[in-house]
Amino acid sequence: MSLKIETHGDITRIDQNARRSRAVAGGGILCTAGQVADSLGADITTQAREAFAKIDQLLAEAGTDKTRVLSIQIWLTDLADYDAFNAVWDAWIVPGQSPARHCAKVELANPGYRVELIATACLP
Amino acid sequence: MSLKIETHGDITRIDQNARRSRAVAGGGILCTAGQVADSLGADITTQAREAFAKIDQLLAEAGTDKTRVLSIQIWLTDLADYDAFNAVWDAWIVPGQSPARHCAKVELANPGYRVELIATACLP
Amino acid sequence: MSLKIETHGDITRIDQNARRSRAVAGGGILCTAGQVADSLGADITTQAREAFAKIDQLLAEAGTDKTRVLSIQIWLTDLADYDAFNAVWDAWIVPGQSPARHCAKVELANPGYRVELIATACLP
Repeated sequence: MSLKIETHGDITRIDQNARRSRAVAGGGILCTAGQVADSLGADITTQAREAFAKIDQLLAEAGTDKTRVLSIQIWLTDLADYDAFNAVWDAWIVPGQSPARHCAKVELANPGYRVELIATACLP
Repeated sequence: MSLKIETHGDITRIDQNARRSRAVAGGGILCTAGQVADSLGADITTQAREAFAKIDQLLAEAGTDKTRVLSIQIWLTDLADYDAFNAVWDAWIVPGQSPARHCAKVELANPGYRVELIATACLP
Repeated sequence: MSLKIETHGDITRIDQNARRSRAVAGGGILCTAGQVADSLGADITTQAREAFAKIDQLLAEAGTDKTRVLSIQIWLTDLADYDAFNAVWDAWIVPGQSPARHCAKVELANPGYRVELIATACLP
């Protein structure tokens, strides 16, 4: 699936709706919005895989991939999910080319989400 | 109102006090400190408007504006404020040029604040 | 102590293990992973000093220093630590060259940590 790309001058927005862009690129940096699963209420493994798939898709639309992610902010809503999240993380990263990361437990507006991922990447 | 601008080499700091800068620019990127309302204890609509006004002011001092914001991190202290916050957000954004965003409920050091906004922008 | 530095093209990773890099540089920006103390269970003063020492070390390995930090995200696990954290912060910053900052109370995966620091810096 290909996402809508909009460019104003040197700023590029990916999959913008009336409220927000799902990712914005400028100055050589791509910032994603918080990416969540499609499967509201699913377990952490499913949700984390879906959220990473969205990150991958946004990176691809921006012409890059996960080996150029500088950092990922990880928001979990239940720290009991930490180990299962890490298993998905470990399967997602490219060994030897892993991002920096930081992880906290917060509350999200929709309680059906167990994880939200925010990526900052360096464009090629 | 014009804010104090300080430059050391290629780093520019806006409205620095003894502890922190309210925004720092370098490498083509502007990072704002967490911006909060002036009206401690006011409702979310008032506080969100005031926080966005501060973001706008910092962007202006840096020679840019909200159409070049890559991402905004939104911290709410009460998720019951989510819809009212979004109404202010929707009025603030420039349609078609919206940032990426991510929003969580956290606790802030001063309980009188209901929202804190952290912006990352691309300088012209 | 010198940390492992790995470069793939224009991306540089510092102290990468099997899961994550402790900092990643690209596009002129350095993003650190969340830095925590070595002294699990120690008080905030000790933990904050140790976390800042790690930030300083990562910056040094990247060829820069704290005067080029754009922003620091501060995660505390107990807002009662706020004033004591600020005392360490105030001793750490270079007066006149302070970063932007934002601070929230969140929960961390390991409850022995009282503070986690995430820095974004501009490379020389």
